[in-house]
Amino acid sequence: MGNSISGKRDTMNNYKLTISYDGTRYHGWQSQKHTDGTIQQKLEDLLERFLGERVELHGSGRTDAGVHAVAQVANFKTKKELPIDELQQAFYDYLPQDIMVTEIVPVPERFHARLSAKAKWYRYTIYNSPKLNVFERQYVWHLSEELDIAAMEQAAEYLKGEHDFISFCSNKRMKKSSVRTVFAIRIVIEPVLDGNRIHIDYYGDGFLYNMVRILTGTLIEVGQHKKQPIDMQDIFAARNRQFAGITAPPMGLKLMEVYY
Amino acid sequence: MGNSISGKRDTMNNYKLTISYDGTRYHGWQSQKHTDGTIQQKLEDLLERFLGERVELHGSGRTDAGVHAVAQVANFKTKKELPIDELQQAFYDYLPQDIMVTEIVPVPERFHARLSAKAKWYRYTIYNSPKLNVFERQYVWHLSEELDIAAMEQAAEYLKGEHDFISFCSNKRMKKSSVRTVFAIRIVIEPVLDGNRIHIDYYGDGFLYNMVRILTGTLIEVGQHKKQPIDMQDIFAARNRQFAGITAPPMGLKLMEVYY
Repeated sequence: MGNSISGKRDTMNNYKLTISYDGTRYHGWQSQKHTDGTIQQKLEDLLERFLGERVELHGSGRTDAGVHAVAQVANFKTKKELPIDELQQAFYDYLPQDIMVTEIVPVPERFHARLSAKAKWYRYTIYNSPKLNVFERQYVWHLSEELDIAAMEQAAEYLKGEHDFISFCSNKRMKKSSVRTVFAIRIVIEPVLDGNRIHIDYYGDGFLYNMVRILTGTLIEVGQHKKQPIDMQDIFAARNRQFAGITAPPMGLKLMEVYY
Repeated sequence: MGNSISGKRDTMNNYKLTISYDGTRYHGWQSQKHTDGTIQQKLEDLLERFLGERVELHGSGRTDAGVHAVAQVANFKTKKELPIDELQQAFYDYLPQDIMVTEIVPVPERFHARLSAKAKWYRYTIYNSPKLNVFERQYVWHLSEELDIAAMEQAAEYLKGEHDFISFCSNKRMKKSSVRTVFAIRIVIEPVLDGNRIHIDYYGDGFLYNMVRILTGTLIEVGQHKKQPIDMQDIFAARNRQFAGITAPPMGLKLMEVYY
């Protein structure tokens, strides 16, 4: 690998990476158990080869095993000043085909991918048709039965805003605040042969562990008339994960954008 | 597996299957060497379990290793009269996720998926952008440099019509006629971030071994100004595979439809 890293300074250089990945093969962005097959580890290993030193990559947040990202953001610091084009080329040449660094930019030293994030956009995609599309099977949740979209939109109205989302969180030992603000939930319908591709877009200032997948599972149960839109109030009041809907499977979820 | 197969008649029952598959994991529709991992074999194995007898599945044509199908067509004959819904359910339950039978219809005894086919539509997709989309990497050929679409369209004009396509065929021991008619070649541009998704649609009465991939490789070389549109005349005249362009990689190719 090219190694024309030049100059050293007293201050740290801070680099922001934008990363796209197909999460199918991985144990998530950062595994709880630090197994080998995480996206963070693949990137840190490559950075170590390039830099000649181990750096820690800070992601904007974890994504679960099987969850994808169109634009995850991470940053790392080094005393070295890096040749951006060469690093870009190294990522292109040596990363597996399902991980891609789409942008590298130097940022001020105080920038932190997680702590500086102001908002995030997650998209959950349901393939709602009697027939699955074999080419999309790893990127959607396939549901055959018709869904009541109007009811789902009503339920989404209750979920929007600032709430304690503890009932929509899988982490039972959550110690910090579980209050978050969901700015918007938008349901976008794309017609396909024999049905619809249904995107549920979530915009919020932060999301708890599994929160987007549990919100989605709950909205789907409303779409199936297993729950009513008004039930959202009881779920919030219960402060109990058991009251919410199922956890939607990971492959339908994509981290679309992180806002700073 | 349910087995309410009822009745026997003297005439044979003929069933037409429409099949969608992601060819990534397979050695093609039917391997030259009859290895295990072919799509035809997966389907024949399942039919054997369901029918209690081995039947031969006749595909409309072979697709190479890594090539996909939105709607491949095949037929098989049996003395038994089959419960279509149960067979459909068996395919749904027991086929791997990357193969899907989208339709089963009884057809007249004389119908043969290959011999009765009047025309086919193949689509080759190029992802023409400096950045690959990780989610499409198994279904496109990624090319970074800009392509001269107008020149490609000019070259396509020469390729259309009835010709001896022997220069566009990988099979050196072709004994039968290599004359085919290409009704139309249509280039469809879909804008993506930083570039285009370029579909090249081929409609013809039949295609020789590797013909669509070699036509595509040749058109791409025209788009890169390595060849001129007028060179198509010399390639036909040479009757020699060496004069045509490269064989485009398999993953960009999809069999879209077979016409009867």
